[in-house]
Amino acid sequence: MRVPVTEIHQEASPDGTPNEPLQVYRTAGPGSVPEEGLEPWRDDWIRARGDSGTHRARGHRLADDGRAAVRRGGPSQQWRGRRPEPRRALPGRTVTQMHYARQGTVTPEMRFVALRENCDVELVRSELAAGRAIIPLNINHPESEPMIIGRRFLVKVNANIGNSAVTSSISEEVAKLEWAATWGADTLMDLSTGNDIHTTREWIIRNSPIPVGTVPIYQALEKVDGNAEDLSWEVYRDTVIEQCEQGVDYMTVHAGVLLRYIPLTAGRVTGMVSRGGSIMAGWCLAHHRENFLYTHFDELCEIFASYDVAFSLGDGLRPGSIADANDAAQFAELDTLAELTHRAWEHDVQVMVEGPGHIPLDKVRENVERQQELCSGAPFYTLGPLVTDIAPGYDHITSAIGATEIARHGTAMLCYVTPKEHLGLPNRDDVKTGVITYKIAAHAADVAKGHPGASARDDALSKARFEFRWRDQFALGLDPVTAQEYHDETLPAEPAKTAHFCSMCGPKFCSMRISQDIRDTYGSAEAQEAIAGMRRKSEEFLAAGGQVYLPHPTMGPSGQP
Amino acid sequence: MRVPVTEIHQEASPDGTPNEPLQVYRTAGPGSVPEEGLEPWRDDWIRARGDSGTHRARGHRLADDGRAAVRRGGPSQQWRGRRPEPRRALPGRTVTQMHYARQGTVTPEMRFVALRENCDVELVRSELAAGRAIIPLNINHPESEPMIIGRRFLVKVNANIGNSAVTSSISEEVAKLEWAATWGADTLMDLSTGNDIHTTREWIIRNSPIPVGTVPIYQALEKVDGNAEDLSWEVYRDTVIEQCEQGVDYMTVHAGVLLRYIPLTAGRVTGMVSRGGSIMAGWCLAHHRENFLYTHFDELCEIFASYDVAFSLGDGLRPGSIADANDAAQFAELDTLAELTHRAWEHDVQVMVEGPGHIPLDKVRENVERQQELCSGAPFYTLGPLVTDIAPGYDHITSAIGATEIARHGTAMLCYVTPKEHLGLPNRDDVKTGVITYKIAAHAADVAKGHPGASARDDALSKARFEFRWRDQFALGLDPVTAQEYHDETLPAEPAKTAHFCSMCGPKFCSMRISQDIRDTYGSAEAQEAIAGMRRKSEEFLAAGGQVYLPHPTMGPSGQP
Repeated sequence: MRVPVTEIHQEASPDGTPNEPLQVYRTAGPGSVPEEGLEPWRDDWIRARGDSGTHRARGHRLADDGRAAVRRGGPSQQWRGRRPEPRRALPGRTVTQMHYARQGTVTPEMRFVALRENCDVELVRSELAAGRAIIPLNINHPESEPMIIGRRFLVKVNANIGNSAVTSSISEEVAKLEWAATWGADTLMDLSTGNDIHTTREWIIRNSPIPVGTVPIYQALEKVDGNAEDLSWEVYRDTVIEQCEQGVDYMTVHAGVLLRYIPLTAGRVTGMVSRGGSIMAGWCLAHHRENFLYTHFDELCEIFASYDVAFSLGDGLRPGSIADANDAAQFAELDTLAELTHRAWEHDVQVMVEGPGHIPLDKVRENVERQQELCSGAPFYTLGPLVTDIAPGYDHITSAIGATEIARHGTAMLCYVTPKEHLGLPNRDDVKTGVITYKIAAHAADVAKGHPGASARDDALSKARFEFRWRDQFALGLDPVTAQEYHDETLPAEPAKTAHFCSMCGPKFCSMRISQDIRDTYGSAEAQEAIAGMRRKSEEFLAAGGQVYLPHPTMGPSGQP
Repeated sequence: MRVPVTEIHQEASPDGTPNEPLQVYRTAGPGSVPEEGLEPWRDDWIRARGDSGTHRARGHRLADDGRAAVRRGGPSQQWRGRRPEPRRALPGRTVTQMHYARQGTVTPEMRFVALRENCDVELVRSELAAGRAIIPLNINHPESEPMIIGRRFLVKVNANIGNSAVTSSISEEVAKLEWAATWGADTLMDLSTGNDIHTTREWIIRNSPIPVGTVPIYQALEKVDGNAEDLSWEVYRDTVIEQCEQGVDYMTVHAGVLLRYIPLTAGRVTGMVSRGGSIMAGWCLAHHRENFLYTHFDELCEIFASYDVAFSLGDGLRPGSIADANDAAQFAELDTLAELTHRAWEHDVQVMVEGPGHIPLDKVRENVERQQELCSGAPFYTLGPLVTDIAPGYDHITSAIGATEIARHGTAMLCYVTPKEHLGLPNRDDVKTGVITYKIAAHAADVAKGHPGASARDDALSKARFEFRWRDQFALGLDPVTAQEYHDETLPAEPAKTAHFCSMCGPKFCSMRISQDIRDTYGSAEAQEAIAGMRRKSEEFLAAGGQVYLPHPTMGPSGQP
């Protein structure tokens, strides 16, 4: 079995010592011809298991794309690539990775992620079996490269894209997907709410090398012309099956927004800010009935188990401002999400749990620890959180601060936030900025957690920096293009990229050069041994209660020479 | 006494309730005519104390601007504005704010900062007296607006500017100063190392409404043509007095780089990365003698005490990569910085202590706690720290993550990092990005610390967001210009700024609108009382060991309806 990696080759050090190439985690897929989509390369693995078939498909209907498409007789940009027959589990069978893991079966998908994560496959299997990790992987999305979400593995990043009633085209959304995956997004959510919602998703899934998530209630609401009170379990169920057949890998389900929790939000500064949550709240209030996602949850589990769709249990009552963080509404819903997590596991359905949102830094850790405890370690998937509300236009940064903190304490996947958050929909540049910012947060958390091998890339880049291997410094970074652009702004000439100084200090002030001289003097094995001896002596002295750093022997008591 | 604030006026809420204007901390100064400089408005306060005079000035010499200026007969852009007579303490007098505070004197400067900080002036005085806060404020910089740095006060942000041998002009540096102060920088460091170093600083100080810091060793090195081994206490002393007379408010002094610590850096991934630290290390090694900044430290204290220049004790051995964080070299130097802190205090000289640099997130807190303990609460002033090294071009973000964490645990001032860090010198745009990013970090830390009133701005902005007061949302943010630009990209028309929806969801999906409906239903005093009653009942039930969230009564045991 082969897994994709990026191998970064490096120049030799100034003294001629070669530097080994560095392998970093990557997704092979981005770069498809959008009109054709990617190869369904995982099909063989799925078929070989013999537990799924192509019978009883719902199929695609014109109305799935909304009224404008019905009027026109089709979506604005028809999908003409591969149209696989939708598969589902044979009667009585369960096709989830959790199910296989619990049976003790090691699937090719598990081996694939173990190789990507550079870990033992038994760790993958046992974490899946326990529900502490998921591989979101619909059997109808064979184009996707298996990846794992769980706190024992690398922290992952999700990118949100999607059109709305007022913006964007299908091509733009496909371009955003490609761009997001190129810069390192691990999963993608298509949050489209406008026209051509089915066909936009078709283009995205057929071109996506990473798992795709959705929030089915958005499309269900389109089907009832935007009137929340006209929603029903039947419309929702139909939408979920439509999306399961298309290949959606995980779905956000706001089943924790219970009727009795809704009044708890009335005293908030920002009420409810989850779209899905407020749609369900609107429905509950209109009918004064319990949330149908909650009352039909087991039926939903049965459907998900037939395609291996994972739950992303939505936090419809998450705070929309730091003022509302960690309040009664939020934590009441979390209790219910924990209950639903355990219910999904009874069906061998994979689950992750969504988290906030907006949380001041001192309250971030409590969120993940509480979720991990209540939900028995089910992966936490958080949006940021933003640690302040005063910087619209910079919320990728305000949220990356909270994201690093929450991931460090156990969040398994971070949903990116772009600079456009709260202001508009992200364009292609914003998608890149959001992904890179969140790769930083995820990686910084991996390093802080002491994840095996996580700091190898930091160390390689730092060594390249110290040795003025500028090209290696660019190549080892998350965004070589931007790094080189910035460097070239002040020192554009090609020789500057091999110069042993830079524009910040100029040639004479170079601290790196002076350090190199020190290393040449003290860096030998003998010198290092002597230094270690000195340090041991100091420590002994300290341990004996002494004061190590006495005034220099040539000085008098006041420190004067 | 009057202090500057920005008063942000707000529109009324949709129901007609007025929203009070919000006052936020600001610096009045930016916006001077660069050729003229700012008014020396604080002169009266300084003179009224009667403890300083204008005798015995060193004055300005042509050679202070470097060899190019000597050849030309002057700097490239002469300063023709106000040239005040340099003042210094009368013989036997000490003019530091720490000295006054220790004598129990409340100065106008202390009253000014107490008003800005919205706190009791006795808190200001007592923190200054204890050394836990400083007001960096040279008596030769009467243009500056007093501000305080200490963990009991708002977290502050420093911006670095300065030319180097290969870039930039005087006008550009003055423009960067104005830009930095406009966006909220609390202090500025002029790190110039190239030509016209004295005159560039003159332009900057005369135009700076915020304290200005320098690293005098950079200019001293210019005076010996860049040869570290030719440095001497005499050249350094002369440079310090030159800068004290100009009005530099604080100076970075790398007096903790002791000869015996230098070998400890030889085994590092990135050796020494502090310019000043490596210059001193180079000198120590060339002469095999102890650092003259350490051996002459008391003499330096006497000079600083005569102008009220504050020490910023430089961390010349700070790590330059996360691999080198918290190592023996770094912590050995910190022990010496603690010793020097206490020595400066014996002279009533104000001190802050510089900190790293590059630290993985799990090791950040240890840095500030260790510094605070060893240095008896002297303000910590840190550069970042960056929590990963893999993102050149995004180091404002990698470092803002560490900066928020370290400030939350007690760092008093954060030195910004711009996107150009490690790649080139920041231009005007980078300065703005760096300042805004660090205002976010500082503010998020204030909020996490529970600083009185810190979250008022968050709450006002969140309320404006919830009520679709778009213009208020822009105005209350750190960067109204960018926020409005982003909003207008998708919804440019003027009516959209008062529309009760936005481009993200469109009119039908609006969660804010649904929340408003909920508030209208449940938000009354009576409804809230009823809700509180429900919550009390739930809590009683829980406390009695009950299970609150039972399946809905209409459902059977499996959750099916």
